[in-house]
Amino acid sequence: MKPIVDVAAQLGIAQEQLELYGKYKAKLGREVWDDIALRPDGKLILVTAMNPTPAGEGKTLTTIGLTQGLNRIGRRAAAALREPSLGPCMGMKGGATGSGSAQIVPAEDINLHFTGDIHAITSAHNLLAALLDNHLHQGNALRINPSRMMWKRAVDMNDRALRNIVIGIGEGNGVVREDGFMISTASEVMAILCLAEDMNDLRERLGKIVIAYNDSGEPVSASDLQAVDAMCALLKDAIHPNLVQTIEGDPVLVHGGPFANIAHGCSSVRATRYALKLADYVVTEAGFGADLGAEKFMDIKCRQTGLFPSVIVIVATVRAMKFNGGVPKQELAHEQVEAVRAGFCNVKRHIENMRQFGAPVLVAVNRFATDTEAELEAVMSLCRDAGTEAVISEAWDKGGEGCRALAERVAELADQSEAKENFRLLYPDNMTIEDKIATIVTRIYRGSEVKYRPAAKRALQELARRGAGNVPVCMAKTPYSFTDRPSLLGAPEGFAIEVQDIRWSRGAGFAVVHTGQVMTMPGMPKAPAAERIKLDGQDRIVGLL
Amino acid sequence: MKPIVDVAAQLGIAQEQLELYGKYKAKLGREVWDDIALRPDGKLILVTAMNPTPAGEGKTLTTIGLTQGLNRIGRRAAAALREPSLGPCMGMKGGATGSGSAQIVPAEDINLHFTGDIHAITSAHNLLAALLDNHLHQGNALRINPSRMMWKRAVDMNDRALRNIVIGIGEGNGVVREDGFMISTASEVMAILCLAEDMNDLRERLGKIVIAYNDSGEPVSASDLQAVDAMCALLKDAIHPNLVQTIEGDPVLVHGGPFANIAHGCSSVRATRYALKLADYVVTEAGFGADLGAEKFMDIKCRQTGLFPSVIVIVATVRAMKFNGGVPKQELAHEQVEAVRAGFCNVKRHIENMRQFGAPVLVAVNRFATDTEAELEAVMSLCRDAGTEAVISEAWDKGGEGCRALAERVAELADQSEAKENFRLLYPDNMTIEDKIATIVTRIYRGSEVKYRPAAKRALQELARRGAGNVPVCMAKTPYSFTDRPSLLGAPEGFAIEVQDIRWSRGAGFAVVHTGQVMTMPGMPKAPAAERIKLDGQDRIVGLL
Repeated sequence: MKPIVDVAAQLGIAQEQLELYGKYKAKLGREVWDDIALRPDGKLILVTAMNPTPAGEGKTLTTIGLTQGLNRIGRRAAAALREPSLGPCMGMKGGATGSGSAQIVPAEDINLHFTGDIHAITSAHNLLAALLDNHLHQGNALRINPSRMMWKRAVDMNDRALRNIVIGIGEGNGVVREDGFMISTASEVMAILCLAEDMNDLRERLGKIVIAYNDSGEPVSASDLQAVDAMCALLKDAIHPNLVQTIEGDPVLVHGGPFANIAHGCSSVRATRYALKLADYVVTEAGFGADLGAEKFMDIKCRQTGLFPSVIVIVATVRAMKFNGGVPKQELAHEQVEAVRAGFCNVKRHIENMRQFGAPVLVAVNRFATDTEAELEAVMSLCRDAGTEAVISEAWDKGGEGCRALAERVAELADQSEAKENFRLLYPDNMTIEDKIATIVTRIYRGSEVKYRPAAKRALQELARRGAGNVPVCMAKTPYSFTDRPSLLGAPEGFAIEVQDIRWSRGAGFAVVHTGQVMTMPGMPKAPAAERIKLDGQDRIVGLL
Repeated sequence: MKPIVDVAAQLGIAQEQLELYGKYKAKLGREVWDDIALRPDGKLILVTAMNPTPAGEGKTLTTIGLTQGLNRIGRRAAAALREPSLGPCMGMKGGATGSGSAQIVPAEDINLHFTGDIHAITSAHNLLAALLDNHLHQGNALRINPSRMMWKRAVDMNDRALRNIVIGIGEGNGVVREDGFMISTASEVMAILCLAEDMNDLRERLGKIVIAYNDSGEPVSASDLQAVDAMCALLKDAIHPNLVQTIEGDPVLVHGGPFANIAHGCSSVRATRYALKLADYVVTEAGFGADLGAEKFMDIKCRQTGLFPSVIVIVATVRAMKFNGGVPKQELAHEQVEAVRAGFCNVKRHIENMRQFGAPVLVAVNRFATDTEAELEAVMSLCRDAGTEAVISEAWDKGGEGCRALAERVAELADQSEAKENFRLLYPDNMTIEDKIATIVTRIYRGSEVKYRPAAKRALQELARRGAGNVPVCMAKTPYSFTDRPSLLGAPEGFAIEVQDIRWSRGAGFAVVHTGQVMTMPGMPKAPAAERIKLDGQDRIVGLL
């Protein structure tokens, strides 16, 4: 690892401008922004993927590898990534900092507390919750209806026992009511932090959060509790992007990590803006597959900010295509060219979808050791037939060197791209929520119908009545399928999407469309990842990655 | 503020040895310790106080002011202080970094997230809780009795609604059971972190935490869940002391902040050890009044470590003496010499008590603007009559300059002190818990009897049966009185102390003796401190202190 001051120096940032967090992490504060704000933007490259499968796709891996590759071929490139949540590191998933020869470091620190951003978000979230219950306890001057509380509590831990709880039990302990915890990354505070342009924007958005409804059915907001400045005080450092590096020493901004279902699933607007001023090429990723992550990247993040991708890279693997082609997980190591062909339909649909946004689209085939030449050749040929280039990427094995070809082609496309002129959002601002949902369902998922449960219909009416009938929509859908049923792989058609409910994230600025049960608090498996984490004799962490 | 690298340089620590957290905070890690471990220790000065009253005593103020004063008179002095908890900053209390001309800085950072230590403790605590409930959910191989769970959850927030809750409600959400949150500073993980000598000691102590009892009534410990290394990983940075400075630029180690009722209430052992190697005089404080804080400092922290104070400073105020002498809070500004004389009995008893430990005892009279010459003269004369010196301290008004006289006298006493030879603990190790309690009650509180409720009697038998019948005791008593009733001020005699329950903090290494209801989760007042916190136009926090 290089000292982070050296990584910053590559970007032209002086040591005095950094807020160091140890020797290998730093925050880039207002001083840095004031210095770079007037520079022209670099090119933004969006990395997305086919629908995730148990076979593994490698979107983060490819994002990091491509950044390394671009630097290898002499381009000034940086990555903009999400912060891992501590909960999943201890539960199911393990770390989220890449793997093999494409990683960001210091991985243990980034995966655990990092620079404290998620802890700050958790604190701000729970301060609002505590103030809300204190308000009820102290006489409830705002006439809040205790059975219409919208603001839960948050913890950065996979803890299913906290999903559904009863609080306030016992004399002097407040008002007895149902409540629950979500994992901190699902907090609207996280979504807001990631969309806020600056502290004023953050303050304004936090103030708009709907925390409950009163006796008259009117929304009560965070600003009504005089909570907002204290929340901002808790977030005063968390709002600044974090600088770390790839294992090849390339700059990476890691900042914010909102859920990709009930939120928009990309790293912070501020990190993207900083990165675009500091580098000529900025590689960023969107959560889940392109049907959810990339669509939200465009229709939420790009819509709000005016940002746009110059190239869209869709990550695919032979293994995931075979899985989509019907091969069970334990047989994925065997050559099965026909299954590749069959499963390619999933990739093909994402290619077609991404083209709608107007930027050049490229497929990165993340190579596994078990991929055969015949299988890889089939993918290349299928992509050609679909009118798109595919490039094999060997980020895991070879790091930046293994992504040279991908980097060359991405850089060429980015340089030629007239992305700004050609970029199109999927739907206009002034369209009803229903029409926006219909547009996404027909043009991205390729369903033929949208059904609304009664709760969803009521929510639509309510939103319209409050003047929010035209806000952008944030789809909460299973990532595993284009449909709302996780088991339907490939490229299904003619299905209906059922909207169960619609929730207003007024601070984040979108309506969350629930198409099925959305889990905002994961559980742990029988053998949690925490059990495998050990400290060696030098107090170094092993077993986290 | 000086850059923290300059403060470190005063102590002979090179920049490369620091883990910086921004420009004004740093952690001192293993490298620093390896460098200084063989140096001789400086002199340790304990600052304690009369029983706290609403009038205000100024123990932290005096600790900081004395450190500033010692440096003013040319001594190399550092302070070792507790970390403020975020919860009370947002609730009742506001900040805890001194005030007036005796403060530690950057105060806002120290009061909020600081270097993330308390967040790390909260995470480690809640990981253990999540693993425990996951174990129940996944088949309960350890045969844990769900009605005998000892490990609650933790949050660093004043949130009364979480005191008493029911968790695990709903299908797939674990086992339904009663639970509750404590504030993070009440966590046994905090007590352990503050007593741990190093990572190995930390690991061993965490492993011993009793989290539940099984079907056979045997204790289940954190190590049974294979949770300990992951908890250590979460605490790998938190174990290192933090360096900040006074507003006069003197070094201060701020590390750990355990409750002073169910825990021992002093900053970490490691911070004290570092400070003693780095400075000739180390000023540290103990929580609450001397009956609780100082006694635990001696009988828990000094017992375990072999540390000892060379001077004991008892902080007293004219106002607090008047309050003890029967003057209501709103009349404390008027001269009332007789009330001072009457209330002095409280100070006098603390003087006598502290003398039992064998170190020289000094009274620091923390001067308020409303104190009259006659009142101050009465205090000085009463102290002389009690065989002790008193020195007036003007830390709030004048900072180090206002503590010159105090510093001169403290330094003289410390230099002359044969503390090591004279130091005596209150009770020997090999004494039963009952005898230890009786010793504290008769020799420190001056009660005449100890009564045991049935739960306490059962706990004594249980501890004896488990071979823990002789562990040190940690008294959980009201800080406002020598008795277990908060309203009995002054120096009562002939009273009984009633022990309600005794809990085993096996990892911390003591038995907590509950003499009344112990609140481990504070609530917020009607107008919480959070409402007064604002950000100014430069995103600076105002209203926190």
